[in-house]
Amino acid sequence: MTTIKVHGSFFSTATLRVLACLNEKSLDYEFIPVDLRSGEHKKDPFLSLNPFGQVPAFQDGDLNLFESRAITRYIAHSYAGKGIPLVSSDVEKAAVEDVWAEVEAQRYEPPSAKLTWELEIKPMLGTATDDDVVKVQEAQLAKVLDVYEALLAHSKYLGGDAFSLVDLHHLPTMKYLMATPVKEVFYTRPHVAAWAADIMARPSWQKVLAC
Amino acid sequence: MTTIKVHGSFFSTATLRVLACLNEKSLDYEFIPVDLRSGEHKKDPFLSLNPFGQVPAFQDGDLNLFESRAITRYIAHSYAGKGIPLVSSDVEKAAVEDVWAEVEAQRYEPPSAKLTWELEIKPMLGTATDDDVVKVQEAQLAKVLDVYEALLAHSKYLGGDAFSLVDLHHLPTMKYLMATPVKEVFYTRPHVAAWAADIMARPSWQKVLAC
Repeated sequence: MTTIKVHGSFFSTATLRVLACLNEKSLDYEFIPVDLRSGEHKKDPFLSLNPFGQVPAFQDGDLNLFESRAITRYIAHSYAGKGIPLVSSDVEKAAVEDVWAEVEAQRYEPPSAKLTWELEIKPMLGTATDDDVVKVQEAQLAKVLDVYEALLAHSKYLGGDAFSLVDLHHLPTMKYLMATPVKEVFYTRPHVAAWAADIMARPSWQKVLAC
Repeated sequence: MTTIKVHGSFFSTATLRVLACLNEKSLDYEFIPVDLRSGEHKKDPFLSLNPFGQVPAFQDGDLNLFESRAITRYIAHSYAGKGIPLVSSDVEKAAVEDVWAEVEAQRYEPPSAKLTWELEIKPMLGTATDDDVVKVQEAQLAKVLDVYEALLAHSKYLGGDAFSLVDLHHLPTMKYLMATPVKEVFYTRPHVAAWAADIMARPSWQKVLAC
C-alpha cells in the first residue's frame, strides 16, 4: 500500500512537477484533487498542509511537505535507489545542478508563468491578453534561453550529461508555452529545441499528460 | 592558501549571503570586488563566471558557481565537517529545511527586495519612494511573517531546532529592512522578533557587517 499522497490540481504546474518526479521513480501515490475554483486550498483542512494555501501538498507517511521543488528533492534523495538518479551524489556535480535549479526557479519560471497567464489562462477566462506584457516577458525568456543555448551546445542536459531534477522542473511550464506562439522562442534555438523535445518525450512526462 | 574566491559587492545581498556562510564555516577566502556602478558585472571577464551578469560568482579551485543559494548549499555540503552543520544529514529533516528554504526564496525575498529598493536604495539615488508599492509589499511580507510567527512558536529556527542555511539566507535582506520602518513588521511578532535578534547576533553575521 502506498504511503504517498499528493493533494493538488492538474491545472497547477507545481502539482505536475511533483507527479513527473514520482513517475520517474515509478512510485505509487494517491492523488487527492483540490478544487481551486471553490477555493478549497485557501481553507482548512488544506491550510494545515500548506499554510500559504497553494497546491500541491505532499505526504509520505507522517512527513508533510509543500513547495514543489522541495518535494521533488525529497523524492530524489529518499528514493535514490529507485529508477534513475535525479540528483548527483558527487558534491561538485550536485552543486552545478543546484546552480541551474536556481536559474529555473528564479529566472526561467517568472517570465514563463506570466506568459502562461497571459496566453493560456486569460483567454480561458474570457479576459484580454496584454500584448505589452507578452512582449516584455518573451524578451526576458529569450535572454534565459540564450544562456541555455550556449550551455546545451556542449552539455546534453542543463545540470550535466545526465537528465536530472533541473530538466524535470522545466516541464510543466513548457507544456503550456509550447501550445502558444512563444514556442518559437524555443524552436529558433536548435540546442534548446532538441533538449525540450528530448525531455518532453520522457515516458514519465507522457504519463503526466495522460492524466 | 585558500582556494576560495568570491567575486562580489558589499552592496549586494546575495554576496553577503555567501560571506555569512563562509564565516559560519570559518573558511578563508579571497574577496574580489566587482564594480557594479561601472557595470563590470555586465562585461567580460565577469560574464564568463556568471552568464546572467549578477554578483556574486564563486570559485573553489576549478569549480565555478553562481546563484547565492546554490553556493551556500555547496559550502554546507562540501565543508560539512567544518563548524556547525548548516544542512541536516537526515533526509526527512533536510526536506523540511528545503521547504522553508523555498519559502525564503519564493515568498520572503520578493517583497523584502522591493521594500529595500523603495526605502533604502531609491533615497540613496535621490529618487522618490513609491508609498503605494511600500504598502502592498509590506502587506505581503506581513503575511509571510504571520506564518513564521506560528511556526516559531514551537520551533526555535525555521528549519527545525537548529540554526541552518534557511535562517542564514534571511540575514542580508533583514539587515536593510531593520534600518527602515518595516522593522515594525518584525518587532510586532514576538517569536519573529526573538528569532531575528538571535540570528542577527551570530558572530558569523557580525563579521560580515564589520567588512
